[in-house]
Amino acid sequence: MRLVLAAGTTRTATIEGISAAGATRELMAHTPAIDAEILVYGQPVSIDLVPVSPTGCPTPAVISRAVREQVGFDVTVIDAGLAAATDAPTVSVGAEPGRDIREERAVPRANAVFDRARELGRSVPDDELFLAETIPGGTTTAAAVLRALGTDLGVSSSLAENPIALKEQVVATALDASGIERGGLADSPLRAIEAVGDPVQATVAGLTVGALESGSSVTLAGGTQLVATAALVRAFGCREPLSLATTAFVAADPAVDLDAAATTLDLDVTATDPGFEHSEHVAMERYVAGEAKEGVGMGGALALADREGIGMEPVRGQIAAVYDRLDPDSTPESEPPADGGDR
Amino acid sequence: MRLVLAAGTTRTATIEGISAAGATRELMAHTPAIDAEILVYGQPVSIDLVPVSPTGCPTPAVISRAVREQVGFDVTVIDAGLAAATDAPTVSVGAEPGRDIREERAVPRANAVFDRARELGRSVPDDELFLAETIPGGTTTAAAVLRALGTDLGVSSSLAENPIALKEQVVATALDASGIERGGLADSPLRAIEAVGDPVQATVAGLTVGALESGSSVTLAGGTQLVATAALVRAFGCREPLSLATTAFVAADPAVDLDAAATTLDLDVTATDPGFEHSEHVAMERYVAGEAKEGVGMGGALALADREGIGMEPVRGQIAAVYDRLDPDSTPESEPPADGGDR
Repeated sequence: MRLVLAAGTTRTATIEGISAAGATRELMAHTPAIDAEILVYGQPVSIDLVPVSPTGCPTPAVISRAVREQVGFDVTVIDAGLAAATDAPTVSVGAEPGRDIREERAVPRANAVFDRARELGRSVPDDELFLAETIPGGTTTAAAVLRALGTDLGVSSSLAENPIALKEQVVATALDASGIERGGLADSPLRAIEAVGDPVQATVAGLTVGALESGSSVTLAGGTQLVATAALVRAFGCREPLSLATTAFVAADPAVDLDAAATTLDLDVTATDPGFEHSEHVAMERYVAGEAKEGVGMGGALALADREGIGMEPVRGQIAAVYDRLDPDSTPESEPPADGGDR
Repeated sequence: MRLVLAAGTTRTATIEGISAAGATRELMAHTPAIDAEILVYGQPVSIDLVPVSPTGCPTPAVISRAVREQVGFDVTVIDAGLAAATDAPTVSVGAEPGRDIREERAVPRANAVFDRARELGRSVPDDELFLAETIPGGTTTAAAVLRALGTDLGVSSSLAENPIALKEQVVATALDASGIERGGLADSPLRAIEAVGDPVQATVAGLTVGALESGSSVTLAGGTQLVATAALVRAFGCREPLSLATTAFVAADPAVDLDAAATTLDLDVTATDPGFEHSEHVAMERYVAGEAKEGVGMGGALALADREGIGMEPVRGQIAAVYDRLDPDSTPESEPPADGGDR
């Protein structure tokens, strides 16, 4: 199994109140670059900054990294429109940071990025791919694309209080700016991405179509952002079996109906509960309060841990260990191993 | 342990008779890009081309990948001046393909690449790094740098018949073109790289200095190209313990004196013998004939397999398996596993 992480940005995230994927709006541009580093190296490398929400909820990259340290899966990061430098190794698909979807064209190179990602998805030899995302503001672009396709599914949020009214207002403005009716691009998924989507959607949709064409199995490892990608893939005419592995936090979001997504888009949906309420560790408590919920393949990683027979208690222990390595100010729940661990 | 592969090119490799790291001089430009893919994915991804020598000796990437499939070490690829696109994820250090060393300046950006690699070497969190190279023509640039530093060590070759006279002639022309006496840059390693070296040297030297500065242990996983890098690191004034892990094929090259390298440069040298004479597989027979010898971290990977207690017989079996997956025309020595293996 290989987890392919599409890491990108959209200026849409800088709209006040849209995303919690960064302590401030300025730091948010670094979040995908550092998420990739945490997944690859176990900690930030290019700058000394751990992505947290304004209330201190750590990035879900911590959870996916913790599972990776236990299960040992391969990772490939795609530069799907990063706005900051990263020391994580990346594959280029020619993506650039996405524009604010309230502009006329959100992803001018959507077609080229999709084609390049599709080719990559076809060529990568792994039988099984988990495809994941990290893009602040991604649930808003997800909502925009779902509306352009005419799919009436709700989207989640990295905020405990989902700013649904704000998102719908941004989406309405975006559709207007691009001259699109709701459902007007039901048969034109690439035009939907170009008009109101983001470069991560173009990348993951391309990877999915290419991998399915070559006979690989694909699990979309994420929440409603990847539900939107599934809608794009189905609109593209791809009818192959497709799975979505997300978290219980997304499933519990009242704005989200995973059963409807499963039925509408013919998805095999799994939602894994890591039981964070059994921990009092700071790395997990904000998740219990409803923040972050998903991202960086968290739901897929948890499903994989489950499949490999690793209980959620050891996973929570490893999450605490990864977080404590990241945060020099934290008070470890337990003593570090005598050899200092693997740093 | 993380193996960091610096993958780059130098136009020096296009001099007739200098390198066997490609079936033709045109295909040689792709070798480092595909070596990285084989190490990361187990097979070429961007184009359907397995790097072989003109006589069909497969790239040592096959050997390092085989060990990786048994030991499971992490890999990070650095774009140290690639001339062809790769689908392997890469970290950028701002390197460009190296020029022919007979021009006045071989690596115009040597300083910037070294600084960037040094910073990366300092930041990467792993306690133990294996640093490896893939660059056709690299033993010729190694010889040039050794002469500029005034170090009288010989270099190996990917050809069974080491074209020593041709290399020395190219090196003499290169030193002349840059206005350098032998030993004239003994205290100026970065100027030596800039004048007559290659971008992989700048990258690996920078990574080494940075990693040693941050307290990591460094094993240079390669042959005389990395002996030259060790000479650059020592000339830079870095006195930390440093290891070199290469193959018995390099040790057996009459042009190479690893004992002298160990003494002169204070290196802890290991040369591992994979016992290829016990196999009749096509993937290994050209090595027994003296071709390739080393590259893509082969010596380091074999040393790691040895350290992990994996015998060389299972390693040879895995090398055959990796090669047979690559080559659709090959006749497998044994049936593939019933589940089709991991492709």
